[in-house]
Amino acid sequence: MSSNKEEVKLFGLVESPFVTRVEIALKLKGVEYKYEEEKWGNLSETLKKYNPVYKKVPVLVHNDKPISESLVILEYIDETWKQNPILPSDPYERALARFWTKFIDDKCLNVMRKVSFTLDEKERENAIEEMEVALQFLENELKDKFFGGDEIGIVDITAAFIALQEVMGLKLFTSEKFPKLFNWSQNFNNHPIVKEKLPPKETYLAFYKARLESLAASK
Amino acid sequence: MSSNKEEVKLFGLVESPFVTRVEIALKLKGVEYKYEEEKWGNLSETLKKYNPVYKKVPVLVHNDKPISESLVILEYIDETWKQNPILPSDPYERALARFWTKFIDDKCLNVMRKVSFTLDEKERENAIEEMEVALQFLENELKDKFFGGDEIGIVDITAAFIALQEVMGLKLFTSEKFPKLFNWSQNFNNHPIVKEKLPPKETYLAFYKARLESLAASK
Repeated sequence: MSSNKEEVKLFGLVESPFVTRVEIALKLKGVEYKYEEEKWGNLSETLKKYNPVYKKVPVLVHNDKPISESLVILEYIDETWKQNPILPSDPYERALARFWTKFIDDKCLNVMRKVSFTLDEKERENAIEEMEVALQFLENELKDKFFGGDEIGIVDITAAFIALQEVMGLKLFTSEKFPKLFNWSQNFNNHPIVKEKLPPKETYLAFYKARLESLAASK
Repeated sequence: MSSNKEEVKLFGLVESPFVTRVEIALKLKGVEYKYEEEKWGNLSETLKKYNPVYKKVPVLVHNDKPISESLVILEYIDETWKQNPILPSDPYERALARFWTKFIDDKCLNVMRKVSFTLDEKERENAIEEMEVALQFLENELKDKFFGGDEIGIVDITAAFIALQEVMGLKLFTSEKFPKLFNWSQNFNNHPIVKEKLPPKETYLAFYKARLESLAASK
């Protein structure tokens, strides 16, 4: 659907759930793009030039114009390629969608990081409690197949890393405790475009294991 | 400019720079609203019902529909009342504006909090260094009178608390070190609507002093 004049590039890292967000959105829109894989711990000068503030992936470059921060990129994608909207059209619904993407990034992400990468048993227990409070809000918010309704929207895309916990078999949330979230994660992970863009489980597990090992080594 | 049918309420705290953001935006748009002052440390049940996730101000209630999180509210205001836009119309310019609002909230806010409320001298020095790196990015970004160009935009509104440092005479940035930011803070603070909506300097200073005293007392 992109015209001949357009050039869309995505700088990413295969293990980054933030990059996965952008890939899912581009695929949902049917936007063709060139993917440039960065090296963990040794990012290219080009990447650093494009994102001098954070020096992080993802960076989307559209006709030589770089955009950083996954949520900012998702809004840009939705405004630039109108097909298959990922944000609702109603201003109030849009506000709610933005509220939940922010909640996922500010609350859920940090607390799930703690759960995944805390070696201290007591700390981990506290983090799990905190995570369950956060997930309960999402559980209550799920009214349909997806947060976006019948189709995947910006909240679902932002929450990709939560669905991934299931893929990885981490059992951070169960069908008993969070039945709606559990079903959602199944629906999300089985969506054809998500299936195509989520890196293989093994990639994530290897990355996760390596991080845990490096944490243990640095204790 | 609001019709008879519309009811706009804002739940706030006079010392909150997040509430100030929403007030400036509503005033710029010429939207009439009813302001409900909450009590610090003793928020109303209504507020908690409207914002069950964070239990924080500001909450904007438009025709009985509550919206939380100041940046989400600012986008809602811009989408709902189209006059005097605070976001640019071009998608790339919008992405940049969103990037900088996020930068101000994620980086500048935390580091300025540290600078203002750290009692340890060494920690404070480190925080000042960190703050200067962050402010330098904003300094480089300022091309016009305001971040929004000739008029106040969403980045200016988000950065209100930075301009306020000047009002408070904290001298966290000087005209020598950050000439463009310094000029911006003068222009911003002297804008008629900002002048009307920024709480009196004394209110902030009293609040600031009280927080410092309670910090010192809890050491």
